[in-house]
Amino acid sequence: MSHKSTVEIGRQLSEELNPGMEAALEERYGHLLPGLSEAVVDFAYGRQYARPGLDLRTRYLATIAALTALGGQTAPQLKVNIGGALKAGASREEIAEAIWQMALYGGFPAAINGLNAALEVFAEIDAAS
Amino acid sequence: MSHKSTVEIGRQLSEELNPGMEAALEERYGHLLPGLSEAVVDFAYGRQYARPGLDLRTRYLATIAALTALGGQTAPQLKVNIGGALKAGASREEIAEAIWQMALYGGFPAAINGLNAALEVFAEIDAAS
Amino acid sequence: MSHKSTVEIGRQLSEELNPGMEAALEERYGHLLPGLSEAVVDFAYGRQYARPGLDLRTRYLATIAALTALGGQTAPQLKVNIGGALKAGASREEIAEAIWQMALYGGFPAAINGLNAALEVFAEIDAAS
Amino acid sequence: MSHKSTVEIGRQLSEELNPGMEAALEERYGHLLPGLSEAVVDFAYGRQYARPGLDLRTRYLATIAALTALGGQTAPQLKVNIGGALKAGASREEIAEAIWQMALYGGFPAAINGLNAALEVFAEIDAAS
Amino acid sequence: MSHKSTVEIGRQLSEELNPGMEAALEERYGHLLPGLSEAVVDFAYGRQYARPGLDLRTRYLATIAALTALGGQTAPQLKVNIGGALKAGASREEIAEAIWQMALYGGFPAAINGLNAALEVFAEIDAAS
Amino acid sequence: MSHKSTVEIGRQLSEELNPGMEAALEERYGHLLPGLSEAVVDFAYGRQYARPGLDLRTRYLATIAALTALGGQTAPQLKVNIGGALKAGASREEIAEAIWQMALYGGFPAAINGLNAALEVFAEIDAAS
Repeated sequence: MSHKSTVEIGRQLSEELNPGMEAALEERYGHLLPGLSEAVVDFAYGRQYARPGLDLRTRYLATIAALTALGGQTAPQLKVNIGGALKAGASREEIAEAIWQMALYGGFPAAINGLNAALEVFAEIDAAS
Repeated sequence: MSHKSTVEIGRQLSEELNPGMEAALEERYGHLLPGLSEAVVDFAYGRQYARPGLDLRTRYLATIAALTALGGQTAPQLKVNIGGALKAGASREEIAEAIWQMALYGGFPAAINGLNAALEVFAEIDAAS
Repeated sequence: MSHKSTVEIGRQLSEELNPGMEAALEERYGHLLPGLSEAVVDFAYGRQYARPGLDLRTRYLATIAALTALGGQTAPQLKVNIGGALKAGASREEIAEAIWQMALYGGFPAAINGLNAALEVFAEIDAAS
Repeated sequence: MSHKSTVEIGRQLSEELNPGMEAALEERYGHLLPGLSEAVVDFAYGRQYARPGLDLRTRYLATIAALTALGGQTAPQLKVNIGGALKAGASREEIAEAIWQMALYGGFPAAINGLNAALEVFAEIDAAS
Repeated sequence: MSHKSTVEIGRQLSEELNPGMEAALEERYGHLLPGLSEAVVDFAYGRQYARPGLDLRTRYLATIAALTALGGQTAPQLKVNIGGALKAGASREEIAEAIWQMALYGGFPAAINGLNAALEVFAEIDAAS
Repeated sequence: MSHKSTVEIGRQLSEELNPGMEAALEERYGHLLPGLSEAVVDFAYGRQYARPGLDLRTRYLATIAALTALGGQTAPQLKVNIGGALKAGASREEIAEAIWQMALYGGFPAAINGLNAALEVFAEIDAAS
């Protein structure tokens, strides 16, 4: 895909989207699981999010829908991806629509829980600005 | 949202995207569950897919991602939505990308099973053309 | 099913079972998702819970069992439905039985988590009386 | 609960509801997992389904709802429990209602798949009679 | 398997691994669900964990992997089983490996949430010593 | 971890455990998703299964338990991992025990479905020998 390695591509993209994530993973989990932080950077960012075949905004909306349908065990990650979707150009309305549509596939409780996660993210952003 | 009722809006959209679906639901399930076919038309199409806040192509890609992550119990519906995504303008590549990204959220088995569903849909289309 | 629309039927039933719910949904989510509160009233209450083919007490016990088996992402909704089941005439014992039976289908952790939700609801009711 | 052991209580109930089940489990799995068939009889029937706190018809409808919401990996067991619910006095309509209500909690694909399992059971019964 | 009943075998093992658990279950749930605590002791300990066919350390690591993949609704039980695995001779590193491997099967969010549960258990142990 | 790259380490291990897998993935999915086969080799084998912190037999038993608890959407992968566990030194009995224990965490239907997958693998092996 490039002269850069997938680790390098992933590192660049992850620093852009989640600055400091690799170092935070290393600090938190590296003593128990050496290589975890590089594996996340390489696989999740270098080999998945950096793929050219689908735009980043749609990738994030697809992820938000899936995490909503899977339910609350993924709430922290749902909030991270809602933040990422906004950075990638999705509007708050589009994010809310992608979540609410999951009433059809993951049920109403999952959709409502997903909307609550989105409202929390939006409120945090508004409070910080 | 409109002078039309959500049932009317849903019926128009469902006939466009899945011609004959309402009648098929009525014939198959109506004797046991009167009102089911209208409820699907009204809620799934009139009150969800017809919403203006997110384009149909992205709605389908989000749904495909979610059904992939939820796993195989939704395989028949995954195939229907892959067909819908193609009609709504998504490319085969984009559909495959949305599915494969789910390796990150639903695991590798779920993503591979989702790709197999997509390959079946693509092969059926190629065989019919 | 009636001369009333499903929205009207649903509104009457939702006000009976969860007074103020429609207004609360509208206030919380309406700015992002116009139509959401009416969709919940119409589909969940008018087109599902109001159906005549199964008594309300059994509907609630079935829902409680399902939310227990699906696990904790639905805990807030599990508590709401436990409250609804009591209103619809189910005893505390029956609710506990429906939850504990899920040890067979969702596993022991899901069943124990469900019982904890029920104990919280029962304690809240006892504290309020 | 009784002078009988839970194994004896469970054996009597399982033979009533699913004649031959214990022997079938023993034949199929006993060489690999000695004690499995007795564990099923004791725990599932003697310590769960035989409990006096909830009537058998409601237990089956609750189970059917949960297996529907959990999705297709439980399809064979869903069909067994639909057969059990009919024996315990639930009507076809009540079974269909308990399944269709799961559109709210497990999503539309899960509910439609559940209905298809019910239609198969009903058709098998009609063909045999 | 023994001259002892499965209840007696289970009670001995549960007291060894989780001293006081049966009494705690009885006190918390016994008024609503008589027989629950004995059912847990008999089925979970006497008929499952006490089985000779697989060593206890591997049983715990298998359970930890499964609870991680199933997601957060089982977090309290995941922590209990991490404690049990340490008692049964698994190292912290082995526990972390079994959890992190679930990135492949339950997705990255589930694996990260599982690691966070493990870090909490390890920190509690370190704080208590 | 080594002077070899994780791709090289993964390729060597995947060829040992599943000869021909990388080429099969490339042939089946490579036209739609360039890089997928290398991503699987690198992440699943080089960065996960090759990790030194947990022996391969336990890794496979943990995976088998998790796939069982997650349910049937992972049945093809469950069978592949049962084959892998046998190669890594697990006995049929140990595999059956790891699966049956999941009755506690994923429910009885999931455990029985998992055992059926194992019996199929064992029968295929016996038929081939």
